[in-house]
Amino acid sequence: MYRTHTCGELDINSVNEEVKLCGWIHKSRDLGGMTFIDLRDRYGITQLVFNMETNADLCREARKLGREYVVAVTGVVKERSNKNPNIPTGEIEIISKEFHILNKSDIPPFTIETDTDGGEELRMKYRYLDLRREPVRQNMLLRHRMAQEVRKYLDLNGFIEIETPALIKSTPEGARDFVVPSRIHPGNFYALPQSPQTFKQLIMIAGYDRYFQLVKCFRDEDFRADRQPEFTQIDCEMSFVDRDDILKTFEGLAKHLFAEILKIRIEGDFPKIPYRDAMNIYGTDKPDIRFEMKCTDLSSLVKGKGFRVFDEAEYIGGICAKGCAGYSRKQIDELTQFVKKPQIGAEGLIYLKCNEDGTLKSSVDKFYSEHELTDWKEMMNAGNGDLVLILAGERNATLKALGELRLEMGERLGLKNDDIFRPLWIVDFPLFEWDDDTKRFFAMHHPFTSALEEDRPFLNTDPGKVRANAYDLVINGVEIGGGSVRIHDKVRQQEMFHHLGFSQNEAEKQFGFLMNAFRYGAPPHGGIAFGFDRWVALFGRSETIRDFIAFPKNNAGKDIMTDSPSPITEEQLKELSLRLRK
Amino acid sequence: MYRTHTCGELDINSVNEEVKLCGWIHKSRDLGGMTFIDLRDRYGITQLVFNMETNADLCREARKLGREYVVAVTGVVKERSNKNPNIPTGEIEIISKEFHILNKSDIPPFTIETDTDGGEELRMKYRYLDLRREPVRQNMLLRHRMAQEVRKYLDLNGFIEIETPALIKSTPEGARDFVVPSRIHPGNFYALPQSPQTFKQLIMIAGYDRYFQLVKCFRDEDFRADRQPEFTQIDCEMSFVDRDDILKTFEGLAKHLFAEILKIRIEGDFPKIPYRDAMNIYGTDKPDIRFEMKCTDLSSLVKGKGFRVFDEAEYIGGICAKGCAGYSRKQIDELTQFVKKPQIGAEGLIYLKCNEDGTLKSSVDKFYSEHELTDWKEMMNAGNGDLVLILAGERNATLKALGELRLEMGERLGLKNDDIFRPLWIVDFPLFEWDDDTKRFFAMHHPFTSALEEDRPFLNTDPGKVRANAYDLVINGVEIGGGSVRIHDKVRQQEMFHHLGFSQNEAEKQFGFLMNAFRYGAPPHGGIAFGFDRWVALFGRSETIRDFIAFPKNNAGKDIMTDSPSPITEEQLKELSLRLRK
Repeated sequence: MYRTHTCGELDINSVNEEVKLCGWIHKSRDLGGMTFIDLRDRYGITQLVFNMETNADLCREARKLGREYVVAVTGVVKERSNKNPNIPTGEIEIISKEFHILNKSDIPPFTIETDTDGGEELRMKYRYLDLRREPVRQNMLLRHRMAQEVRKYLDLNGFIEIETPALIKSTPEGARDFVVPSRIHPGNFYALPQSPQTFKQLIMIAGYDRYFQLVKCFRDEDFRADRQPEFTQIDCEMSFVDRDDILKTFEGLAKHLFAEILKIRIEGDFPKIPYRDAMNIYGTDKPDIRFEMKCTDLSSLVKGKGFRVFDEAEYIGGICAKGCAGYSRKQIDELTQFVKKPQIGAEGLIYLKCNEDGTLKSSVDKFYSEHELTDWKEMMNAGNGDLVLILAGERNATLKALGELRLEMGERLGLKNDDIFRPLWIVDFPLFEWDDDTKRFFAMHHPFTSALEEDRPFLNTDPGKVRANAYDLVINGVEIGGGSVRIHDKVRQQEMFHHLGFSQNEAEKQFGFLMNAFRYGAPPHGGIAFGFDRWVALFGRSETIRDFIAFPKNNAGKDIMTDSPSPITEEQLKELSLRLRK
Repeated sequence: MYRTHTCGELDINSVNEEVKLCGWIHKSRDLGGMTFIDLRDRYGITQLVFNMETNADLCREARKLGREYVVAVTGVVKERSNKNPNIPTGEIEIISKEFHILNKSDIPPFTIETDTDGGEELRMKYRYLDLRREPVRQNMLLRHRMAQEVRKYLDLNGFIEIETPALIKSTPEGARDFVVPSRIHPGNFYALPQSPQTFKQLIMIAGYDRYFQLVKCFRDEDFRADRQPEFTQIDCEMSFVDRDDILKTFEGLAKHLFAEILKIRIEGDFPKIPYRDAMNIYGTDKPDIRFEMKCTDLSSLVKGKGFRVFDEAEYIGGICAKGCAGYSRKQIDELTQFVKKPQIGAEGLIYLKCNEDGTLKSSVDKFYSEHELTDWKEMMNAGNGDLVLILAGERNATLKALGELRLEMGERLGLKNDDIFRPLWIVDFPLFEWDDDTKRFFAMHHPFTSALEEDRPFLNTDPGKVRANAYDLVINGVEIGGGSVRIHDKVRQQEMFHHLGFSQNEAEKQFGFLMNAFRYGAPPHGGIAFGFDRWVALFGRSETIRDFIAFPKNNAGKDIMTDSPSPITEEQLKELSLRLRK
């Protein structure tokens, strides 16, 4: 037997016991006649003591142990004189009697500490060492815990875990598929699923009523920061439900996770905000409602007074930053630069300072009277000491920019409290999104999403106006998941494909199996899929999903530890009936 | 709200309640003035009643409902006069007040019954209808339940679920990889994992101590009956353990599943049978020990008496079939044909009938005296009434054939009781397997398996003799899982690659990241992987894993429902920098 205990479990109750521990040499301190070693394993750290006076040979050997050596130690538990109240084992130490080196270690390329000296690239290359660091270990444990609780809740609520295939049919709709060449069927390919969407609908048609799966999904996208080519989805579907049944069920899941994982009770129903309202009020469909600072439409108030920028703008809107009237020229300039960044895209920033003394100061006060500016102040619900920030331009773009400015101000004002979570549902998404490049409508969610019944009359006359029976779960400005009530009728699904510009032949070829299934008693159904990586990151108070994946790829989709992707042999290519294109 | 109850939950306690149910029309019977309809959902079947006398219009409408129509029904629960004790809802029925058709159904291509009239091909094409059948539904529920219990046990025992990547590096060792071309890195490929072996070892090196994952794995093999290109593994690894720690832990898992899923308590430790013994006694490394009928070596007894077949054979062995002395000529011929099948490969079958009256009758009694045959009888531990079946030839092949004959006799004699489970461990597998084609040794398990310490001296002198610290879990003749204590030392791993004929360069290129990781404090570790599909099939009393996979592929690796694999567009090929080889 290698050990009697782990490095995280001994305390004052074990004093005088002889124990055997295994672990890594975390830290070593020689203090005159004594050597103290922190032995680390997954469960914690236990202090080993070696004494020159009582066992000089052993102590000398112990002094040779390098960082990250793996050792097995036998010794007796003693109460410490200098207790460490910060760790569970801090009241005891092990008076070592003997030890064995189980494996040596080269000096690690970076320190195995919470604040390591290793850069991102280096830590990725030695990910197995990075994973030893306390914060990364906490992230992995959090992910494990959340996965168990997700399944526990869903199982308790009658959901059945069903595995859907990973080798499926490629469909050009949506994002790009990763494909897998078939050796046995030359010239044919499987695709890796972007989501198990059609399969989960088939599972509903098969009568399984409630389905779930934590499942790997794949998207061959052009890489950008914090995108992973493979990611994990909590995928769920239910039958014989309307939208609110679904929202209630998954609000339950979210509340369960808040309670079990974060020990936070969320009372009452999550707010439901229609997409249109979210865009108007927060300039985004994933609002962070931990703070107010709503976007206010000032168009009616500010137009027609001779200020061309406003007069020519489709939309003029502002936010009110509480207590920021004292912002300096430099601070205002920073904000102006912020909104002018290409990814924000505003032309400029106009402000109205509502000074503590009741006076008003605006960057456009030569166009507007004191009286008019007072109306602005009132419209913005601003008080003395507040700063109103105003953007103008094309409606959607300006709202979006204003939303970004709002988040920036929330950040600057410390309004994004990490310990507060404000979940909400965005509902009534548009069914279609117009694509200017291809001059056609795309499904905003996916082609299986149903329209709101009352909007169906517009399907032929004004498709852009049709709202979908679709919803997103948003927490603190992060879209955690989304779903919809699906179409379950063959004719309506055909209609939908038609509106999306599929020929009947294309629709048949790609989704014939689903359309066919609709002929045999498809129940009303709907569901949702959550981005598990992102949800874990949110609970871990981080925006970087990579930190919550054991072996992530870098932003170029590479695993630099194993050097993947990499060339395959000519023989492999031949077997697959493939040739590289030069 | 679509429904107040499911079709599986109403009983006598709900009499006189008004309820709303949804489901599929399972069966419909018109009996004079009444129509009885079985409404089915995942949870069960509830009988609906329509009455021509009390509501003729509704009853007439109900008579138009076709099989597999989806309906929502409102009605009142009443106690049945003709109770059905076989189903939980059998004491009640619903006096229907109104119903809505939620979706119609074409006549299904086969009956949705336990004994369906649909052939395999048809049921695969309409898998979503096949999944509605009761036995398939039970299989899916069993799989769900087992997955939850596996995770529950492992979580309780300190195992952490960690997801390993699905897009990894291709290594030509082992079975063939499925590969995934990278679009962004032209000419480079990911591979889909055959198992997360190297990653789970890295997880141990990262200090996670106990890891598990239910994970999809992929093997591009030439298809044969009941092989799936993708399958699910219960993948586990532990640190600071020796073989028996590992076996104990996973014996615990098996016992947990037996208890929770099958309500079977297995007492005591599972037997541990060395590979060599298993081969000698059962002619297989996955013995079915629900019955005895051991192979007995008769060589010393039967050689040198002038019977050439025996004299020239390396091995002569027999099994004793209790009570079969009365087998007819025809029955013996059947057995002879059985052993002569190419997949069994014996040259012929020799028998010794130990008749009830004490006389002996053998197919070779012109070569052997009564006295000699009596010695056979004794050696075989045969009694009056028993039949001894004997095969001769090359040792390993003959033992294997005898093992097959043993299973055949077990089958004929009804000794394979479905309700009895006899798990065991096979231990001490050979480390290497000689391949006659390539004239080299291969790793029998995989290149990361350690040798038994006492056999290490033979590594250079007689590699075929070296036993591995490897083990399989076998239940009722099915290999459920296998694993090993791993090499955790860089030098030993290099040695191993050397013995397997890897050049240092090849080893470095393919497994450099793992060898590198061994330099930074790799703990002693080992683990196991279970074939989840197979384990579920075993618990479901079936040999066909396909029946326990929601959307399996056929024996040619095709999904005939979605028609996959299939060609991709020229544009997709171009993006991937690939060309088809004609």
